[in-house]
Parts: sequence; C-alpha cells; structure tokens
Amino acid sequence: MSDELFAAVVAHTAVREQTDDAAIIATVLRVETALADAQGQAGDLDEAAVAAVRRACEAAADIDVAGLARDTALGGNPVIPLVAELRRLADPHTDAVHRGATSQDVLDTALMLMARDSVGTVAADLDRAVTSLDGIASGDHTVMGRTLMQSAVPLPFAEKVGIWRRGLTDTSERLRTVATGLPVQLGGPVGDGSTFGAHYADIRAGLADKLGLVDAPSWHTVRLPVADLASVLATASGVVGKVALDVVLMAQTEVAEVREATDDRGGSSSMPHKSNPIAAISARASARRAPHLASHLFAQMEQEHERAAGAWHAEWSALVDLLRATGSAAWWLAESLVSLEIDPDAMERHR
Amino acid sequence: MSDELFAAVVAHTAVREQTDDAAIIATVLRVETALADAQGQAGDLDEAAVAAVRRACEAAADIDVAGLARDTALGGNPVIPLVAELRRLADPHTDAVHRGATSQDVLDTALMLMARDSVGTVAADLDRAVTSLDGIASGDHTVMGRTLMQSAVPLPFAEKVGIWRRGLTDTSERLRTVATGLPVQLGGPVGDGSTFGAHYADIRAGLADKLGLVDAPSWHTVRLPVADLASVLATASGVVGKVALDVVLMAQTEVAEVREATDDRGGSSSMPHKSNPIAAISARASARRAPHLASHLFAQMEQEHERAAGAWHAEWSALVDLLRATGSAAWWLAESLVSLEIDPDAMERHR
Amino acid sequence: MSDELFAAVVAHTAVREQTDDAAIIATVLRVETALADAQGQAGDLDEAAVAAVRRACEAAADIDVAGLARDTALGGNPVIPLVAELRRLADPHTDAVHRGATSQDVLDTALMLMARDSVGTVAADLDRAVTSLDGIASGDHTVMGRTLMQSAVPLPFAEKVGIWRRGLTDTSERLRTVATGLPVQLGGPVGDGSTFGAHYADIRAGLADKLGLVDAPSWHTVRLPVADLASVLATASGVVGKVALDVVLMAQTEVAEVREATDDRGGSSSMPHKSNPIAAISARASARRAPHLASHLFAQMEQEHERAAGAWHAEWSALVDLLRATGSAAWWLAESLVSLEIDPDAMERHR
Amino acid sequence: MSDELFAAVVAHTAVREQTDDAAIIATVLRVETALADAQGQAGDLDEAAVAAVRRACEAAADIDVAGLARDTALGGNPVIPLVAELRRLADPHTDAVHRGATSQDVLDTALMLMARDSVGTVAADLDRAVTSLDGIASGDHTVMGRTLMQSAVPLPFAEKVGIWRRGLTDTSERLRTVATGLPVQLGGPVGDGSTFGAHYADIRAGLADKLGLVDAPSWHTVRLPVADLASVLATASGVVGKVALDVVLMAQTEVAEVREATDDRGGSSSMPHKSNPIAAISARASARRAPHLASHLFAQMEQEHERAAGAWHAEWSALVDLLRATGSAAWWLAESLVSLEIDPDAMERHR
Repeated sequence: MSDELFAAVVAHTAVREQTDDAAIIATVLRVETALADAQGQAGDLDEAAVAAVRRACEAAADIDVAGLARDTALGGNPVIPLVAELRRLADPHTDAVHRGATSQDVLDTALMLMARDSVGTVAADLDRAVTSLDGIASGDHTVMGRTLMQSAVPLPFAEKVGIWRRGLTDTSERLRTVATGLPVQLGGPVGDGSTFGAHYADIRAGLADKLGLVDAPSWHTVRLPVADLASVLATASGVVGKVALDVVLMAQTEVAEVREATDDRGGSSSMPHKSNPIAAISARASARRAPHLASHLFAQMEQEHERAAGAWHAEWSALVDLLRATGSAAWWLAESLVSLEIDPDAMERHR
Repeated sequence: MSDELFAAVVAHTAVREQTDDAAIIATVLRVETALADAQGQAGDLDEAAVAAVRRACEAAADIDVAGLARDTALGGNPVIPLVAELRRLADPHTDAVHRGATSQDVLDTALMLMARDSVGTVAADLDRAVTSLDGIASGDHTVMGRTLMQSAVPLPFAEKVGIWRRGLTDTSERLRTVATGLPVQLGGPVGDGSTFGAHYADIRAGLADKLGLVDAPSWHTVRLPVADLASVLATASGVVGKVALDVVLMAQTEVAEVREATDDRGGSSSMPHKSNPIAAISARASARRAPHLASHLFAQMEQEHERAAGAWHAEWSALVDLLRATGSAAWWLAESLVSLEIDPDAMERHR
Repeated sequence: MSDELFAAVVAHTAVREQTDDAAIIATVLRVETALADAQGQAGDLDEAAVAAVRRACEAAADIDVAGLARDTALGGNPVIPLVAELRRLADPHTDAVHRGATSQDVLDTALMLMARDSVGTVAADLDRAVTSLDGIASGDHTVMGRTLMQSAVPLPFAEKVGIWRRGLTDTSERLRTVATGLPVQLGGPVGDGSTFGAHYADIRAGLADKLGLVDAPSWHTVRLPVADLASVLATASGVVGKVALDVVLMAQTEVAEVREATDDRGGSSSMPHKSNPIAAISARASARRAPHLASHLFAQMEQEHERAAGAWHAEWSALVDLLRATGSAAWWLAESLVSLEIDPDAMERHR
Repeated sequence: MSDELFAAVVAHTAVREQTDDAAIIATVLRVETALADAQGQAGDLDEAAVAAVRRACEAAADIDVAGLARDTALGGNPVIPLVAELRRLADPHTDAVHRGATSQDVLDTALMLMARDSVGTVAADLDRAVTSLDGIASGDHTVMGRTLMQSAVPLPFAEKVGIWRRGLTDTSERLRTVATGLPVQLGGPVGDGSTFGAHYADIRAGLADKLGLVDAPSWHTVRLPVADLASVLATASGVVGKVALDVVLMAQTEVAEVREATDDRGGSSSMPHKSNPIAAISARASARRAPHLASHLFAQMEQEHERAAGAWHAEWSALVDLLRATGSAAWWLAESLVSLEIDPDAMERHR
C-alpha cells in the first residue's frame, strides 16, 4: 500500500524518509540501545547484558513491518511489539531490554530525534530559499506596492524581497532554536523515574547525552515539546505561504512581473499554452496544511493523569504530517525562487 | 516507503485500501473510460475510439507508481501524467482520450467515487457498532447518571445505551444521505462545458449515470460536495468520540462498570497486570483527528476564479485522511463494543 | 464594557442583536414560560401556577445583567441564577418554575431558538446577494477564464456569475433545511425525562410545538444539532469567501474588471487616491473566522456521560461567534454585490 | 449591547478590560501621541505640533464608540476614523497627526501593547496557580498513578503535583519571553518607511523606546509576532487544560481524591446535593477555545503583498479572544487550585 501520489505535491520533502516506518523502527531501536548503554554506564547493566541488547536491536532492524503494524494495533503503539521482539532476541538477557522504561518513554524520545532531524531539513530548505533571493533582488528595480490588493505607492523591489528574506531568516532561526532544545523522555510507567532505581538521574542524563537531546524531567502528559514543534512549524509554514502567495499573485497573467522559468514543470492537461507557477502553488498548498495540524496538536495537550488515553496516540501522525507539510512547503518555495525570473519592464509598467 | 505503524492505530480501516495510490489510479482510469463511453453514446466518439480509450485504460492500470508520483510533482496533479500515458497508449486515437476534460474534472469525480465507497465502509462499521449494543443493553440494570463528572441520579442503563444508539444511527443515516448525493464533476478547463460541444448536457448526464453519481453543473471552485463530506465525517467522528469516551470513563479502575473482554488486545510494555480498553482508546484517538481535517477543508473553500492555485491541491490528502480517520474511529468503536462486558454489580455499587 | 470596534468589521450583522445578553435572557425566559405552559396543558401544573411562572418571567425580563453575569460564573451557566430569580418571583409557586428541567435543557433549547432566527437572517442576506447578481450579469460580456491564477480561455461572464449564484442559492437552501430541523432539548438532569413524570412525552411535544422546534429525544451529550449548525455555517462562509475572493481579485488595479461603486466606503488613512473594495474584503475576513469555530464545535462533541464537564460550556460563545461571522460574511457580500460595477472594456482587454 | 453572560464562564479575566473598545481607543491614542513625540525628538515636528497632537489625543479619549464603530465599518479599521477625528481636533496642525503612518502601523502597534499587558495578566494568574500548589503538595501522600485511565502503580502525590508545577512554571516563562520580545510596527503605506523621511530609523527606535516595545523593521504581512503570540497562548492553554482535567478526573465521585472546597460555587439548578468543581470545569472550557483560535491566526499568515485584503482584519478579534480565553483558563485554574482540598484517605484507598 502506498500514498505517493498526493504526497508528491503536498509532502514533497526528504522529511518523508526521516519519518516513515523504517525511520520509526530504526529510531526506536537506537533509543533502546542508548538506554541500555546509559544503564551500563551507570552500573545497572553488565557488559554482556548491554551487548545482548545492542545485538538484539541490530537483529530487529529488518523486522517485518506488516506484522509489526498488526501487533501495534493490538497493543496501541509500535514499541510494545518491538520490545517483545527485542526480549526474544536478547534471551537470556530479557530483563536488560527496555529496563524500567515504558513504551511512551521510547516513542516520545524517538519522535524527538526524528523531529530534530526533520526540522533540520526544513531549515536547510528555507536557507536555500533565502540564498536564491540574492539573485532575484540584485537590480535596483522599483515595484508597485500593493495594499488591500490595490496599487498603493511604489517601493524598491529589493525592499519587497528584503521583507521575504527577513521572514524566512527569522523563521529558520526559530526552527533551529526549537530543534536544539528538544528533550529526552524517560520517566517509566508513571513518570517519576522510580523504576530506574537510584541511578535514574544519571541514566536519563546519559541517554540524553548519547542522543544529543536535552536532559529534562518526564513530560508524558505536559506536552510542551510537542507544542513547541507545533508552534514553530505552523509559523514556518505561515511565512512560506506568504512568500508563495506573493509569487503566485505577481505571476498572474495581468501582472506578469515574475514567472517560474523552467521547462519541465507547470504544464496543463487541457491547455498546452499555459505555464503555471506550480512550485509556488505547491508550496502554498503544502503550507496550508499546517495551521490545522498544529491546532490538532494543541488540542491534544489535555492529557489525563500520568499517561493519556487517546490524546497521545492522536499526536503521532499529526506531528509527522506537520513536519512533512512544512518540509514540503519549504522545499517547493526554494524550487520556486531558484527558478524565478523577474520582468523589470512589467514592474515599470505598473508603477 | 510505508506509513503503516501509526496508521495501525489511527487509520485502522478498509478505507485505506479504498483511498491509496492503487485506488486513485484505478478510479481515475474508470472515470476516463466512462467519459469516453458517454461521449460514444452521445455520438461524439466512434466505436473504435471508445474501444481504444478503454484498452488504454486497461493497459495503464499497472503503471509504475514511483514514476507517476515523480511526474505528478512536475504537473501539479496525477491526472496530467496519467492522461499523457493514456494518449500514448491509445495512439492513433490520441484525441479521444480525456476529450474536452480538464484534469480537475477527472480527479474531482474520482475523489467523489472513492468518497462514496469509503463513506459506505464507515457507515457499515457504525451499523456494526449499533448492532453490538443490543447485547450490552439487554438487561434491566440501572446505572448512576453522571453530570459534570459527578454522580447525579440513576437512570436505566438501557437508556444510556439508547442515547448512544440514537446518535450512531442518526449519524449513519446522515453519512448515507451525503454519499448518495455526491455529484459528478465535468466542466472542462473553465467549467462552462463548452469544450464538450453541443452534447455537453448528455455527456455529463451519461458520465454521472455510468458512475452512479448525481448529475450536476461544474463545482470546480464552489466546493459544496467537499464541504458536505467534511461536515458529515467530522460529525460522525464526534459521535464516535462521545461513545468511546464513555467507555473509557466507565472502564476506569475506580468505576469498572465495563471492560473490553479480549485476550489479545490492550497489554502494556511495563505493567503486565494492566488491561487497557485499547479499542475505545484507539477509536477516540482516531476520532480526534477529524475536527481539524474538516476545518482544513472548510478553509480551502476560498478558491480563485475558475480553478484554484493551491487550495484545491490542499484538499486531497486532507479528504483522504478524514475518510480514514472517521473509518478508523468507527471500526475501533465497533471492535470495542463487540467485546464489551458490563459489570452490573459495579453499576449497583455506584447508585 | 463594549466590543463594537472589531465587530464592526467581522461581526457586522443583525445576528449580533439576536445573540447578545438581552437575547439570551429573553429566550431563556421564553423557554421557561413555554415549559410551564406545556406542563399546564399536560395537567401537571394548575392555572395559577402557570400564571405565576409567566408573571415571574415577565418580571425577570429586566434583570440586572452585571449581577446575572457574576452569578453565572459561580454556577457555571446563566440559567441557574435566572431560575433562582424566577423562583423568588413566583413565590409561593416556587415548585412550578423550571419543574423537572435541568439548566442545560433550557439553555440548549434557547440556543436552538436563537440559532434558528440567526440562520434566517444569514439566509436572507444570502438571498439579497443572489438578487443583486441579476443586475451584474445582465449583459452578454465575455470574461477571461482564469485557472491557477493564469489566463486560460474565455467564458461568458454570465456563466461565471451563474456559478456564484448556484453556490449561494444551494447554500441558502442548506441553511433553511438545518434551521427547520432544529430540535427542542428536554430531558431533565440525566436526560431520561423521568423527572417530568408520566406526561414527559406530551410535555416535550408541547414545548416543541409552542416554540416551533422539532420534538426529539434528549441530546445533552450527543451534539448532532450543534454539529449540523457548525457544518452548514462553515459551508456558507466558505461559499461567501469564494465569491468575495473573486471580487477582490477582479478589483485588483491590474485587472479592474469590477469595483465597489460607493462614495462612503473604502477610504485610506494614508492614500486619499485609493479606493478599496472594503465590503468584499470584510466579507472575506468574516468568512475566514468560520472554519476554526466549526472545528472547535466538532472538537467539543466528545462529551462525558449524561452532561459534560467543560465541552458543553465551551460551545456557547463559539456557536454565537460562528453565527455572527457567517452573518457578517453574508451581509458584507450582499453590500459588495449591490454596489458592484463591472467594466466590460477591461474584460474585453484581458481576453 | 453586551456579551457578559457567556464571557463570565469562558472569558473570565482582567484581560477583557485590557482588550475592549476603551482599551483599543486609549492604546491607539497612546501610539499616535508617542509617534508625534518621536517625530518631535527627531526634529521632524516642532513643539507646537507635538503639543497639538497630544492635546487632540487627550480630547479624543471620550469619542463616541457607537459612531466610531459605524465609521470603522466604512473604512475597514478603527484607526481611519480616529485619525480623521484627531486631525479635526489638531487643526491647524492637521499634518502633524499620524504623519507618515498607515493605519496598520498604529493598530498593529496598539495590539502589541495590549497583548503585552494581557500576557502579563495571564502569566500572573499562572504564577498564582503555581503558588497555590505549595499548600496542596505539602504532605507525603501517595497517589495511584493512572495510565490510559487505568490504575498503574503509585507515585508520590508531590511528584504528580510537581509535574503540574513544572508545566505551569515553564509556560509562564514562555509567556514572559514572548511578551518582552513584541515589536513596534512602523513602516508607512507599503512598509519601507520612506514616508517618514530621512529620520525613519530614529523615529521608529524612538517610538519603540517610548512604548517599551522592541524596535524592528516593518512586519505588515510577515506576521511573526502574531504567530509567536498564537503559539505561546495556545501552549499555555494546553498546559492549563491538562491540570484542570486532572482536577476534574480526581474530583469524580468514584475517585473523590480532591474537591473544590467553596460554598459559593458549583451548585446545580436541579440537584441541590451536587457540588461541581466548577472552577476547574470553567478552566477547561476556557482552555479549549485556544487551539482553534491559534489555528485561525496561523491560517491568516498568508497575507498579500504589502498589506493584506482580509487576512489582517480577520486577526483582530481572534487575537483578542485568544488572549481572553487563555486569561480565563489561567484565572479559573488559580481559583480551582486555591480552593482545592485533598482527601489522603481516598488516595490511600485507591493504591
């Protein structure tokens, strides 16, 4: 079963590979390995046990996804069957696997890792968009300023592009700030860390260190890291949407001050003479997915007691979709701007 | 690339197969075939041309999805490259393929077909949930009525279940009403039907008839059918969410008036003694995806002129996700209710 | 305390007066009166008691709003303090007031009445918009069809306007269908009607009849009527937004095919030469409030047990705002279209 | 016309007074005064002109709101008629009023000031909630940990409360960080500052300094400050909602580990024996408004060219409502926690 066709337009980004089933499995296994390492370092697991966990994680890397999906439905999350498989593989070091942890510890931590890498991809595409602005704004053209969709007074085109640049640059910065602040999750069944014993603080710090995440107390049902991601991704999509909209509006036939100059994109099935600014349009379509996904994530913050009955589960695919939507928006915007050709004569005519 | 793991929880439904790439391709080809048929019937295509289109559609059924996805990104939607392939395959009857149509005609019509079938699946699962209520409410037990989460006064348990039943039944009815009213889309590049010539009305009626959709004027940028689907699906998810929440609340350890009696679901990775009502929890998680997806679809209704620059493209995956989310909510709720065991003693204790 | 300034733009509609504090109080009192009447008719209250309730409701009509608001906060809804006041006023017929009812019965029923009247206002403004289209589309002008914001092929302007008209007409029809289906709410504390005694069915039917609502079983926590309103209002706003967007786009200086011809609207604080199509812009701004308010209402459908702890309370102002937003969208669109002047020469130039 | 009754539950906060019509007018006048001051300091206005503007702003403070609302509708925002009035009052120093500015400069800046003060109110109420936790968590009680709404294993109650505290404290910090970073808006009609002449940089810095806002380039259509507010407010509401939900769940009759101990709140119109945790319920209802309002604000980020045709106008009331909703959530949570009484025996029983 595949979902490539619509994704080609509104999830067109390397983030897809960073968040698909293979990425989830690999990242969960990476967290389980790092946990055993940290517990070894803290003196709670001996070398043989740590090695057994590591080998089990390596062996489980090519687990059958269809079977894992089936078992995921039975337990409510993919970590439960993965841990069962790891325990089988680590025998007789069964107890060394996932020791003290709850499945949410591992999945939350894995999602933070995936989010950190994905946000990096998004920021890199935004940077590519920013770089491509240099070429566009090099001249000293003047463009008509437009307010409420009516001609107002002219301004330097470099100034208009400068506003885009500042928006994209500030956004990229916000993305990186959030990415570097993402925390590890480790609290055990009810979040107090007691199942990790006396070395809980060390183990948690060790896990964070190994994974490059921030050490922090458990946040099973206080979802600030997810809210931070929702916030910054929806914000980024909003800025991309603004720039993409300006491109689409300036590319209107009656305005024609910019066009996406490319041979291979933007054809029509019924009108061969047309050329659509399809990269900007796809950026816009991708960006528009974000507000509602962010809203969904904010609405899931109301989580019960120590671990939630549904609101947590409802986060996963929305977070993944939000990363992909914003990634796609950034990628398409960079594509659009890289190919953008401006028409100074048209700008002159509209002054 | 696969996305099965999170889908196992929040998109657990036969609707997935009804809306994946294979379904999109098959349905688009079905629409192209039916269009040629209708044009043949109207006397605008001769028998050989219709046959050529039909054969091309059969031959294109196993088109390479990865290549199609790549070309989808270039043109902005999957119909453009599919039509190019059909024209190649139908040679020399190239002109008979997709005659007069625009890609949005075909994709909108295909989405209506997929939605109609998917809504049927959702309604069938709701009906299964309703049927399973009969077993639960057969006794004449009394349950404490609870308002604002406080004990209020008792009511017959059959009455409480009756409220669930009415909600689910009314919702199923609303779903079927919308499904039977979904229209065909056929208008050509700018929606006025002129590219179909003098027999436009006949061709559109013929296409609707062949596909079992309602004949209607073009709605390229007045998205009432999408709004109707968004409305009824979010409504259905809301009702499922209400019933699932009641199950989860009644299954709380301190209440324990119901439980999902099943051996294979609801285990924990850290606490073997626990049994979670995982079907109700998954129903709830699935249902919670709906309001935001519906909101997204409503927000895309602001579409420009004759065909939109982004808002249309932003609809596709949201509509598919909304169908899947609601399908998953209905499926899980039926699973939960089928397995539900009530504890009349516990009910008695709380009166 | 007043909130008139922003409302002047995005809640510019007679619906405001139909949903403010005065309307709430008047409607709640109307429901309490009708309930006593229905109970009198059913033989459960004698004439003197009914008369006492009626007089109390008349006397309470000018209750101090500030005090009522203060007490609303203490009890969680405005009916609780209103009923306390009615009981004081009806003395010694205290027991005849609000007999058997819960505050949610009365507030839900009052909101349905207010919604019915408000939806009527919205539909009437949509009809005014439709009527004004006749003047615009009378000629046989041709306008360039635009797809993905690029010139495509021309179509008759009457055809373009016809698509607007169909959308608005279908929407108006949907609004009236929902309005005529809105139900009464009467179930007592836990929704089973038992507090109304043997004549429950008669009383409920009598109440519905007196108020012109549909008789229906209690829906305290199965919020289908609210979902129906959310659906149809967001749909209506979506259609208004589409038409308003087309007006704004056609009014762009570089297109200039339409303009809002009016002397008193659309000035600028910094650019006296500008004339903004401010009615279409305000219609668009108003319409854009709807998807998120509808989403909020769908998300509140997950209500606990017999009456909800928060989700119900979260509905009220969102429903009112959604009625006002859609009302404002419809009103402004009618204003825009009534004043719209088309420029056939500009249309001709762009073909 | 008043809207106090529903606001008493879901907008119960001093933020209302900080964002109503009187606050808007006062803040707009404060910005106009500060602008003239800054221009005086920069040498662009002489002393008499600055004094005339100042006097005009003082004189306009009691402008008729109903008339202003009427004129707001005609121009599309309240600054246009306010400036007209100021010019009349400042005669003959007409040109000194609003010099170089566009109405969006002033309204955006005013909204930032109002938001800064409102966010301060929200943060103060969160701090009050945090302080009240000290009393609750003083003992060394143990409470059953609950995951997926099932008993899991016990944890110290102080630990459970500690998770609430961290969430509320982190949120309060995020709120203050955003509040101190809010920028001034000053760019003139098309955002390039040219209408302010050679001293543009000084005037903008001076304005920022006088108002205590951050100096920043114009952000008319790159709405990062609004997105930052949407983000942090929805986040804060999410955390409040989590704590309020825990209170509501622990207050359930069958759990009864906490209750809101107060005589004047939480009564029922039909069941005198009941006591509802109405402050926590109102906190929850208020908090639930936030995700959708934030989503609305993110969705408005797609703004056209130099100033937007509708998306900007659609922000105002949503931003105000979001400030109020979050303010109300924080206020009610503080009320709930201040009154919260815990029952260690009940906690003991459920272990």
